[in-house]
Formats: sequence, C-alpha cells, structure tokens
Amino acid sequence: MTDIRPHVVIVGAGFGGLAATRALARAAVDVTLIDQRNHHLFQPLLYQVATAALSPADIAGPIRAIVSDQSNVRVLLDEVTGVDKAARQVELGSGRAVAYDWLIIATGARHSYFGHDEWAMHAPGLKTIDDATAVRRKVLLALERAETETDPDRRRALLTFVVIGGGPTGVEMAGAIAELAHQSVSRDFRSITPHCSRVILVDAGPRLLTAFPDALSAAARDAIEQLGVEVRLNAPVTNIAHDHVEIAGVAVPTHTAIWAAGVRASPAAEWLGIGADAAGRTIIGSDLGVEGCENIFVIGDTAACKGPDGRALPGIAPVAKQQGQHVARIIKAALTGQAPKPFRYRHFGNLATIGRSNAVIDFGRVHVTGFSAWVLWSVAHVFFLVGFRNRFAVGMSLFWNYLTFARHARIITGEIPAEIPGEISITPSLQPAE
Amino acid sequence: MTDIRPHVVIVGAGFGGLAATRALARAAVDVTLIDQRNHHLFQPLLYQVATAALSPADIAGPIRAIVSDQSNVRVLLDEVTGVDKAARQVELGSGRAVAYDWLIIATGARHSYFGHDEWAMHAPGLKTIDDATAVRRKVLLALERAETETDPDRRRALLTFVVIGGGPTGVEMAGAIAELAHQSVSRDFRSITPHCSRVILVDAGPRLLTAFPDALSAAARDAIEQLGVEVRLNAPVTNIAHDHVEIAGVAVPTHTAIWAAGVRASPAAEWLGIGADAAGRTIIGSDLGVEGCENIFVIGDTAACKGPDGRALPGIAPVAKQQGQHVARIIKAALTGQAPKPFRYRHFGNLATIGRSNAVIDFGRVHVTGFSAWVLWSVAHVFFLVGFRNRFAVGMSLFWNYLTFARHARIITGEIPAEIPGEISITPSLQPAE
Repeated sequence: MTDIRPHVVIVGAGFGGLAATRALARAAVDVTLIDQRNHHLFQPLLYQVATAALSPADIAGPIRAIVSDQSNVRVLLDEVTGVDKAARQVELGSGRAVAYDWLIIATGARHSYFGHDEWAMHAPGLKTIDDATAVRRKVLLALERAETETDPDRRRALLTFVVIGGGPTGVEMAGAIAELAHQSVSRDFRSITPHCSRVILVDAGPRLLTAFPDALSAAARDAIEQLGVEVRLNAPVTNIAHDHVEIAGVAVPTHTAIWAAGVRASPAAEWLGIGADAAGRTIIGSDLGVEGCENIFVIGDTAACKGPDGRALPGIAPVAKQQGQHVARIIKAALTGQAPKPFRYRHFGNLATIGRSNAVIDFGRVHVTGFSAWVLWSVAHVFFLVGFRNRFAVGMSLFWNYLTFARHARIITGEIPAEIPGEISITPSLQPAE
Repeated sequence: MTDIRPHVVIVGAGFGGLAATRALARAAVDVTLIDQRNHHLFQPLLYQVATAALSPADIAGPIRAIVSDQSNVRVLLDEVTGVDKAARQVELGSGRAVAYDWLIIATGARHSYFGHDEWAMHAPGLKTIDDATAVRRKVLLALERAETETDPDRRRALLTFVVIGGGPTGVEMAGAIAELAHQSVSRDFRSITPHCSRVILVDAGPRLLTAFPDALSAAARDAIEQLGVEVRLNAPVTNIAHDHVEIAGVAVPTHTAIWAAGVRASPAAEWLGIGADAAGRTIIGSDLGVEGCENIFVIGDTAACKGPDGRALPGIAPVAKQQGQHVARIIKAALTGQAPKPFRYRHFGNLATIGRSNAVIDFGRVHVTGFSAWVLWSVAHVFFLVGFRNRFAVGMSLFWNYLTFARHARIITGEIPAEIPGEISITPSLQPAE
C-alpha cells in the first residue's frame, strides 16, 4: 500500500451499489458513489406508492443520509454517460469525469416495450418514484372521471384497468388496484360502485409467476381472482393506444394500462464496448468480473450471471445485494494480496404478495400461501427497508392501512390533464332529487 | 319546502369550503363540492414539505375521504371558469355546468408578483403541493451542486437562499431553510459545511410580521437571526433573474429565491362581474353576501370582509372556517324561514413559527415566545389537521424530526434539469489523498 488510498467508484445506489458501499466501510479505500437520483429506492414496495397506500418518502431515503456515517464515501448526484477504460475514468453527464482504481456498475434496469416504445406513453411502467406517482395520477383520475361520466361505454372504459405482465410486479399491481377500485373506493364515490370496475391481468404465457412452482402459480391465480381480478393467460398484447389495449387481437377499451411485462438492463455493456445478452445485460463471469475489463465489476439487474444450475440469476434484490457484498470482499482481498473466493449465490426464496392479506412464498422445498405468507412478506419487507425511520413509517402505514382499508396517500399531484373528450351537458345527475 | 332539496354548490375544498360542507351535514340540502384538486391541503404546514420535513400526503387528505361519511355531499374534480347568475349555474372547465340554489365561493388566493409575472419562474411561491415539491427540488439540488462546485463564487451563489417577504410564511421558510442548510446538512455533505450557506430574509417594510405587535416582531427577528438568517428590512426587491436577486438595487448572486411576498385572490369577482379590491378580493358585506348577487357567498382568502375595527380580516384559516360555518348557518336559517344573525369573527390569536423550537404567538393581551410558543404551535397545528390519520402521521413526523434533526422527505422527484453551466474538468477533489 502507498499513502494514496485506492479509489472505488460505484455507479448506482440501488441494492447492489449500496451493499458494496457498506461492505467497504472499513476498507482502506475511498469510495465515490454516483447516482442520477438523490435517493435510494425500495423498489419492491413501489406498487404501494402507485396505488396510494404509501408515500414516496416512505420507501425512499436520501443516499447521503444512508451513508452519512461512512467517512470514506463521497456521494455524487450525476449521470454516467460512458466509461473510458484506457484512462480508467467514468464520464458524467455534467461534463466531469471521475478516475477509478476499481469500478462497480450497478445501474439496474428500465422497463422495455419489446420494440414498441410508443406504448410507453399509454402504459407506464414502474421503476422510479415518478413512474409510481404517474400511475397513481392515472388510476385516481380515471376513478374521478368515471364518477361524473354519464355515457355507460365511456364509464366502463374509465373503470377498466389492464395490467400487462403476470410476474410478481404485475400480480402485486393488479391486486392492489382491485382493492383500491373495489373496496377503498366504495365508501367515497357516489355514482360508481365496486361492481362497476374491472381489473384485467394479462400475460402472454400459460401461467402467472413463472419463476414459482406450478402449485404456487395456481394459488396466486386463485387468490387474485378472489379479489375480482380477471386473469387472461396465453394472451399476448398486440397493441396499446390511449383508449384501448388489444389483447390477442381483440380491443379492450380502457384508459389505464400499466406495463409490468419486461425490463431491459441499463447500457453498461455499451459503455464498456462489449457484448450483451438479449435483455441488454452485461455478461459476467462467476467472479463477477467482465472479460477484458480489468478492475470492473457489473452486478445486479445490469448483469447476466449464471447460477450453479447454469440458468441466469433472477433480477431480484438479494442477488444484487450479495453480489455487491462479494465485490467488496474481492477488493478487500486484493488490498491484502489474498485470492478472492468465487461468488456463490444463496437463494432464500421467492415472494409475491396478492392484495392486503395474501401472498405466496417459495422457499424451495417449503411453500407458504395465504395470510401467513402475507405476514412473512410484511415482516421481511419492513425489515429490509433501509433506515429505521422508513422502517417505522412503513410499518405504521401498512398496519394502519390494514386496519382501516384507507389509502392515505390518495392525492393527485402535477398538472391535471384536459378532460377526456366527452359530451358537454348539464349533467342531470348533479341535481339529485330526494 | 317542496320535495326537491335545495342544491348548495361549494367551490373550493380549502378551510372555508370544507367548514361550510361539514356544517351542512344534517341540513335538508344536497351539496356539490367542486375543487380543481382531489385533496384538501393544510397550507400552514406547506413550508415543511418544501423543506423536506414532511411528505405531501402528511398534510393533504383526499376530499372524498374527508366527506365520505356525509351522504348529502357529492364531490366533483373540476375547475370553475365562470358563474351564470341569470341561469343560476356554475360553468366548469370540462364543459359541464352545475345549477345551484345557493353558491359558496371559497377558492382562495395564489401568490402575486405585483405585475412581474416573469419572476415566477425564478422565485416560486408556496400555495400547492406542486409548489412545495418544486421548492424542495430547487433547495436540495442547489446543495447537491454546491457539493461538487469548485469555483468559490459559484459555490457561494448556490449556497445563498433568498426568501422574499417577511410575513409568517417568509419567516417560517427562512427558518426552515436555515436549519436544513446549517444543521441537517452538516452530517451528509463532505465539501460544504454549515458555515458556507447564507439565508437572507428580505422585506420592503420596516419590520417582520407586520400583523403582530412590535415586541413580537422584534422577538421573531432575534430568533431567526439566532438561526443564522440575515434579515434585510426596508429593502425592496427590484429584480429577480435565474442567477441573482436585486435587493434595493444591489444584485445578490443566488440560484434559489422563494416568493412569500404577496397574494392575489382567485377571480371570483370577475366570475360575478363585480368590482374587487386592490388584491383582487371580492368585496362582501357583513352578512358575507355579495351586493347584487342573490344567494351567492364569497368567503376566505377570496373575499375582503371588514372586521369590527373597520380593517379587512386577515387571510388566515380561522377566518375562512368561521365564515364557512356562518354561511351554513345562514342557509339553514333560510330553510326554516328564520332571520340569520350577523357574522362576527372571533379572533383567537396570530401564530408564526421560527425553526424547530421557537415561535411567536399573539393572543391580544398575552404574548408567548420561545419554546413554549413552539409547543403550543405544534399542538395547535397537529390538532387542526383534518383527519386522524394525518394528525397521527404529522405528529409522529414532527416529533421524530425534532428528536433526530432528520428530514426524511429529502427526496428529489421529477426531472433533474441540466447542470448549471460550469467548468468542465476532472475534479481533483474527487481523488482524495490520504
């Protein structure tokens, strides 16, 4: 070691980047943590913000606050635009560049519309706080407009919600919208009733939650149908427009479509000038390194990493966290001249929640469904939230919502767009007779 | 009475409109409550959202949820564009119209730039949730940019915050920004220190809080200077641009100016085709009626109503609430053929808070300052919040923030605008030596 401490640059303060940062707390390195947002986001609960059960700040913590007790970390709010491998520096959107001795890329994924980018404006996905508040606005405005709409066809379209994609996010969104539309709303609206609304969960494949065993897929389907969700399987979405979604060639009128069908990794492979897999993920070795890119690691949703069974590891938080911790171990080993151990992913289980009191959990040999799974899910999610303040706030909010069915965050922010074109009339129903 | 119940249309679900709605709960009328937003906002705590201490949903409740137990109320999300007095109907932005038997206009006020509307983009005011999150973004981004800025002049400008207007909102904003910049931030940033930042509170008049007695103005000034705020009195703002505020002819470089200097009433007088006072307020009689406008009432910040001393009542929540309740009494009296009593405003006191443990309260003969005033202020504000859930959440948040100095809502949402033009360099300070 010389008296200059090696500089580790970590791009992305998601689960992977943050795990690496924390694991380097006592290492003799300086860390620069770069993110294009100022907050770490607990993405698994984002659908709760989209359905007005939690506030953005309940599931997001300022990155600076999270690492404030770690004196070897510097936080930069900036966007990475490229990597100069020869000069060993990261290029930033502000025009600055940051030199690195080690580089960890953990920039996650965005949703992907499989070549139909024009669908994005009609069917937002769910990856950021702004995505979630946009979905919340869409859902709440549709209910508001349905309340005053007198044309039965238009009202039906306003009360039809289509969730595209039957993975955990899609199942969670569909369940939460069904609860919002069927239950919470019944108290507050005068014209629309719980029976008016229709929530459709559509997937091109033959079953929901393909990462889970058949039995749990079936249990999830039963549970979500119990909530009033229509499940459409083997039904590819062939088009999305502002007023309908085409499911297997048939147009379903709706003003609220939500995309949960696919993601694409952030362009780390492009920055590094190397190949990627079909989902845009950088192909990494079992040591989490990138071939031909010395001292560079790519982890989390950005990377395609094979598990012991030869299949790619799933894009979930535990994978990103364990990879982040492992890279930190590699760097610490290198500092003392030790050989690093190979990365071995420890799988704890797959979880998906369905509405306010049901979930499915796959622990491998053990399956848990129903209310006990939901309790496990709640405890796990509240426990893993970063920072005690958030843990406490989310715990209280979830518990309160559970007791009261309330959705306290049901506020529409941002500009309210022009009314959906409709008949201009002195609505007779606004003049109720006794 | 016939078997058709009279229809009361209330425009605006602020303090006044909501008080009127609630007071009509058991009256034999149908109520339509119209607002252009779906939430009631507790405006007195908006500065806490702007300074990241509270989340938007902590101080905003869905209007539908607030009145859901009141079966004679219908809520409409729409914007009023005019009033047709002859046809007795309210015209809406959606093209619809709603007929009324009684009309209560309680649409509040917006900030006013005294003819300099071009200042709005550089110095946002504080009236809506979106205003508050915009100010929050501005303040937090300035801190983020100062952290990486190497030019001392630009860094100083980024760390200079100018609050324009020395009324309660200005004093509260300046105190809260000073705390955010001086205290909370000191833990989380590496380059900027509490001493780098400068908060200036500027007013054209000779003292702060002109609605309060001299002694309390002086106490407020002392308290806010203790927090590190520079108070500039008799100092009119003569220009505002993106990179400076001109105070009494001298340009002060800053990227964060906040407007708390003046408001203008919403255009009820225009809708009614009658005269308004200099602040755009509809002039109303002591019966809260509008001359020449039968069955129409204008209340709250939209109205100019003289108090017993001949001066206009202040634009504060208690005035709006009492007026709303009084109009409901007038309507109920008319239903039974009784003569209404004249409106008499009961003034309880003026409050302004300064930072996290100081406030001034004017109860008339009794003045309270310091920590005990802050405790009274906290209790009063938490108590008056609409809805138990919010009351509980805000109470917890305030208490938690008080204990920890934390600002849990320190998240930047929305697009992060392009960097302020700066030197392009490989920042040397990003490569710290041991």
